[in-house]
Amino acid sequence: MTEIELLRKVRARMGPGSLIGDDCARIEGPRRGHELLVTTDLFLENTHFLRSTHSAADVGHKVLARGLSDIAAMGGTPLYCFLSLSLPQWADASWVRRFYDGLLALAARHKTRLAGGDLAHGETLAADIVVVGEVPLRAALGRGGARAGDAIYVSGVLGGASEGLKSGKGPGFARLRRPEPRIALGQYLRGKATSCMDLSDGLAIDLHRLCLESKVAAVVDHPLPASPGASLEQALHGGDDYELLFTAPPRRRVPEVWRGLPLTRIGSIVAGRAGKMTFFGRALPPLGYDHFQNS
Amino acid sequence: MTEIELLRKVRARMGPGSLIGDDCARIEGPRRGHELLVTTDLFLENTHFLRSTHSAADVGHKVLARGLSDIAAMGGTPLYCFLSLSLPQWADASWVRRFYDGLLALAARHKTRLAGGDLAHGETLAADIVVVGEVPLRAALGRGGARAGDAIYVSGVLGGASEGLKSGKGPGFARLRRPEPRIALGQYLRGKATSCMDLSDGLAIDLHRLCLESKVAAVVDHPLPASPGASLEQALHGGDDYELLFTAPPRRRVPEVWRGLPLTRIGSIVAGRAGKMTFFGRALPPLGYDHFQNS
Repeated sequence: MTEIELLRKVRARMGPGSLIGDDCARIEGPRRGHELLVTTDLFLENTHFLRSTHSAADVGHKVLARGLSDIAAMGGTPLYCFLSLSLPQWADASWVRRFYDGLLALAARHKTRLAGGDLAHGETLAADIVVVGEVPLRAALGRGGARAGDAIYVSGVLGGASEGLKSGKGPGFARLRRPEPRIALGQYLRGKATSCMDLSDGLAIDLHRLCLESKVAAVVDHPLPASPGASLEQALHGGDDYELLFTAPPRRRVPEVWRGLPLTRIGSIVAGRAGKMTFFGRALPPLGYDHFQNS
Repeated sequence: MTEIELLRKVRARMGPGSLIGDDCARIEGPRRGHELLVTTDLFLENTHFLRSTHSAADVGHKVLARGLSDIAAMGGTPLYCFLSLSLPQWADASWVRRFYDGLLALAARHKTRLAGGDLAHGETLAADIVVVGEVPLRAALGRGGARAGDAIYVSGVLGGASEGLKSGKGPGFARLRRPEPRIALGQYLRGKATSCMDLSDGLAIDLHRLCLESKVAAVVDHPLPASPGASLEQALHGGDDYELLFTAPPRRRVPEVWRGLPLTRIGSIVAGRAGKMTFFGRALPPLGYDHFQNS
């Protein structure tokens, strides 16, 4: 298969009016009164996934889900995605087809258009997804807005992906392979949450990052909504759940369940050394998945 | 070095007001009367470069130059770039610092802001660059506009990077390591050229791609501007030159030298089977660097 042949196949999947014929894609700017959001997310074989746990369609789904989850964390609406793909020898035409099946099914559900990308042969599978979205001006959520006194919430359940990686079955394993970006929830939280981010590397390390950006400390003193079968350790430090972590002023009424998704208060933001965290009175170390912890 | 520490260092390099604290970068849309251009470009160790030929700063320069060259090919102005980087064990802190030196020096020259990205540890070095630019509405150049009768031009000299890869010295080797994106030329060609693309994989294969998009054929019947020491084979089929290939109506006056850069007529667009090419009367095969030719 030549590059032109592969591009022709990919382009056919993208539908009429696709944008990959030229050196750049031309995209419409944000609507009036909106600004653009851009996120890039690398997904690497043996770093982020194993061929033994993720099917081709799982990999395609998860690559895009990770990017969409970043758009969700800012309260945005995804518009376009771009995929750069390094394909090793083992990734045959059938694998590539099923990979695009998984990616494009999720893209269709979120009305996100695959607008371009790049392809190359490499020694390992690497996928870099770019998602471009929009958000109303001055409405984007971020990590820097948490204030002392705010309540801390998480959506859904925690530790499922980590438990699923170990057990290889059940809802945790499904979550590991097919995380669900919380686009609608992120949009709902605009104007309500003071800060928001997605849980990609684990509650403790991600809450630490949010506290660093907001220059505040956190007290976690409510039971965590652990995924069925997940240990406390997995709920605190397991990555790959892609739920939203957010803060809201204490008087803001946050529903316990929103469109079937639990929203659970887990603690409070307090004044203190930026990034300091406690869990039921004890220091909580910012452990989780850190790509550079062991280097 | 933890991810937070590395991000802190990268962020310090990005200057005040950098955008990498949140899950997405927030960027301004195109100016009124403009549209956005987006390009993504993968650069892989052992596929696109060897550590033995490219220094860390060369890799940083070339990663961005490849993306900027796509913006140049469309006649655009670069605004932002995003870098996803997979770092193997051999890439130590000093290598990473020099890599960013090379990338940011080129970004500064083209007033392009590093606005975000992603970092992970991987088995090989992989860099995916995203460049976002803008172009006036209806003014973007593309590959699909060449018409029978148009003259075909190339900027600069051809085959230098290919010759330099072999010789390991001289101006060709410098071109291989530090290609120069033709941003100003691309902007100059707006409203003048009927089609344009950058020469990344070699004249023959890239002209073939332009002809396929424009549904025309090409006759190359003028001497090629070969780089000093480059063979005809290298000028026809060698990649990595990053000059511009463009077409213009026959009566359009194109200067022989523009701001010190030669613009050389090499042939004509003719009616015929889409993608068909001849070189001084003989069939010209679309050979060059094709990432999927051997799979």
